[in-house]
Amino acid sequence: MSKIIAINAGSSSLKFKLFEMNTEQVLAQGLFDRIGLAQGAIKIKYGADEEFKTNEEIKDHSYAVKRLLGLMLNLEIIHEFSEIKGVGHRVVAGGEYFKRSVAINSKVIRKINSLAEYAPIHNPANLMGIKAFKKILPTATAVAVFDTSFHQTMPKENYIFSVPYEWYQKYGVRRYGAHGTSHRYVADVAASMLKRPLKELKLISCHLGAGASICAIKNGKSFDTSMGFTPLTGITMATRSGDTDVAMIAFMMQKLDMHSMPEAIYDLNKKSGLLGISGVSSDMRDVMEESTTNSRAQLAVDIFVKDIVKYIGSYTAEMGGVDGIIFTAGIGENSAEIRSAVLKRLSYMGIEVDEEKNLLRGENIVISTSSSKVKALVIPTDEELMIARDVDKIMKKKNVKSAKLV
Amino acid sequence: MSKIIAINAGSSSLKFKLFEMNTEQVLAQGLFDRIGLAQGAIKIKYGADEEFKTNEEIKDHSYAVKRLLGLMLNLEIIHEFSEIKGVGHRVVAGGEYFKRSVAINSKVIRKINSLAEYAPIHNPANLMGIKAFKKILPTATAVAVFDTSFHQTMPKENYIFSVPYEWYQKYGVRRYGAHGTSHRYVADVAASMLKRPLKELKLISCHLGAGASICAIKNGKSFDTSMGFTPLTGITMATRSGDTDVAMIAFMMQKLDMHSMPEAIYDLNKKSGLLGISGVSSDMRDVMEESTTNSRAQLAVDIFVKDIVKYIGSYTAEMGGVDGIIFTAGIGENSAEIRSAVLKRLSYMGIEVDEEKNLLRGENIVISTSSSKVKALVIPTDEELMIARDVDKIMKKKNVKSAKLV
Repeated sequence: MSKIIAINAGSSSLKFKLFEMNTEQVLAQGLFDRIGLAQGAIKIKYGADEEFKTNEEIKDHSYAVKRLLGLMLNLEIIHEFSEIKGVGHRVVAGGEYFKRSVAINSKVIRKINSLAEYAPIHNPANLMGIKAFKKILPTATAVAVFDTSFHQTMPKENYIFSVPYEWYQKYGVRRYGAHGTSHRYVADVAASMLKRPLKELKLISCHLGAGASICAIKNGKSFDTSMGFTPLTGITMATRSGDTDVAMIAFMMQKLDMHSMPEAIYDLNKKSGLLGISGVSSDMRDVMEESTTNSRAQLAVDIFVKDIVKYIGSYTAEMGGVDGIIFTAGIGENSAEIRSAVLKRLSYMGIEVDEEKNLLRGENIVISTSSSKVKALVIPTDEELMIARDVDKIMKKKNVKSAKLV
Repeated sequence: MSKIIAINAGSSSLKFKLFEMNTEQVLAQGLFDRIGLAQGAIKIKYGADEEFKTNEEIKDHSYAVKRLLGLMLNLEIIHEFSEIKGVGHRVVAGGEYFKRSVAINSKVIRKINSLAEYAPIHNPANLMGIKAFKKILPTATAVAVFDTSFHQTMPKENYIFSVPYEWYQKYGVRRYGAHGTSHRYVADVAASMLKRPLKELKLISCHLGAGASICAIKNGKSFDTSMGFTPLTGITMATRSGDTDVAMIAFMMQKLDMHSMPEAIYDLNKKSGLLGISGVSSDMRDVMEESTTNSRAQLAVDIFVKDIVKYIGSYTAEMGGVDGIIFTAGIGENSAEIRSAVLKRLSYMGIEVDEEKNLLRGENIVISTSSSKVKALVIPTDEELMIARDVDKIMKKKNVKSAKLV
């Protein structure tokens, strides 16, 4: 029996999922929210369908981890701490240094810290989670899994911006992408669903959540992706703009009498996207409901669909074709209408949707017809499972090494 | 006999091309350069292969126009001013107001002036040209031909940015595009070369000059285009960045201690693109020559090709297919290597290049094989002829109207 926990630590939250790795069964999952703030909240789901909920002060990440493990004992999810052999931590920015998941040591911690300028909110929060677990589970194998590392295989012409090259050389400015763990997970699943080796496939993965990115996956490797140096670019998102025109932002800063770039970036991150266009909501469900009577809500939906179509077209051309298009994350998994709207516009590629299958939910499913030239798939993403699998792999390698040393 | 002159007035220059409209023959063309500056220069080509060149002070646009007409008499290009029945003026920004070319009256002049905030350098210069000709040829029909008006047919989801909608409503911030006269001209020619009605075609026009833009033309109308609110977006250009990440610019402004947006925009307009990536030159010929021995020059070429491939893919998807891909302007007309590199990456679409035809220059030519599913065409652009044709059309309509009044 080998238990592995996957951790996603934010500045005031800690999400977890505990797996029994032999079966990949989820033993427990939950959220510690409002860490360090008033009205902390803990929620744990476990067992067949059991739930534990409480509100209490959670003074810091260390306390959260201690409390989590204590609760796991109390709720009989585990019987002793040492059952948890591995801890996988999501880390947002891995820069060019981390090309894959790694066992955490002090050098890795220093490096994650030095990459904080690329993710000023996330990397320090991720480190808080890493340090808290190290203190309380010092012997468990700790692994860092980066949102960016999957995209480190992109060819240079796809990651270099067309700006002074020194910006890249001196400051590391380039396309890093995001959602790498999700794109990697769904690509793996798609290959097994299509019963073809991942290494022979051209896939386009559409991770459509509040944050959204599209990824071209060629022969199992990220080939291009819509998020850039930051998660601001690419397709329209819940409140983020996606691709715009920098000179237009300069024009608007003058008009709105904005004196600093961060002000403008705030508007592009928080007041744009579905919310900005529709004026209704950042939630696609609300926007779609309004769209029958509100032309701006309809426009937001149309732009969202168009952006996805546009990127799928781009990546098909960049890869020289496509075998499968994957939909995942909130909107990708749940909105049959959005999937159908996107795929209808792609019918010229020979995509045929099975509209009945397209209505199914919550499972891995091919939603194109058997004669469809390009396959369309819905695959619920599972970044935590991918994180746990990386931990498991690294633990097994370690064991092989130790065995050789004996 | 009806002579029409097409004018492109810049802040310190005036380019012209005089046509005999019945035959569309070019009678003369030339440039008045360094207007209002030291060492003004005049260059006129005319007749079979004759050239007139001189250096002299050109104090303002009015003087330039007077001198131009005087020289035309002297050089016996015309015999009296009144032979020039129409003057067509290129105007950069037409906003949402000008959806087609129009006869110029005082209201049009006021409107072009009020649109100057969208083209602060160009529109005022264009107006100087308009006013100078009005003074010296008061009875000729003057027509304004806008770079943007062709793109006014784009569907809303293709021109609205995913930013707060009020930015569009209050400040007119949207995708306007550019090179409209060029895209319109080559689309017309392509239809006649393919012997199919323009209204039934899906075309992608690649205007690849120092400034470059790609345009999706569906049923004869601009459907989408790569330039945005300004000419900064889209594909990599000579010195312009094309699409980037606004938040990356914010990051670089901090790093470079830039305190104003115009500084950053300057770098993106003048120090980016082929020049910024290669460090060698903004001229594709130089960059390609260096590319065999210089990896950054090779990268610049690769990024340029990739950007074109990406947009062709996008627009193919947006339009639901493509019948013809057109190459025009400096690089598009002259670089067989770039065309070949782009089209090879698109072979998955069923494009087959006739590499011998691809080597031809200076004529309208289909460079794909007869079995190619998608046609590829090289069409030397002629914005001046398109401008003159618009003047001619408007003059004929006017004549019909006057005839009816009689």
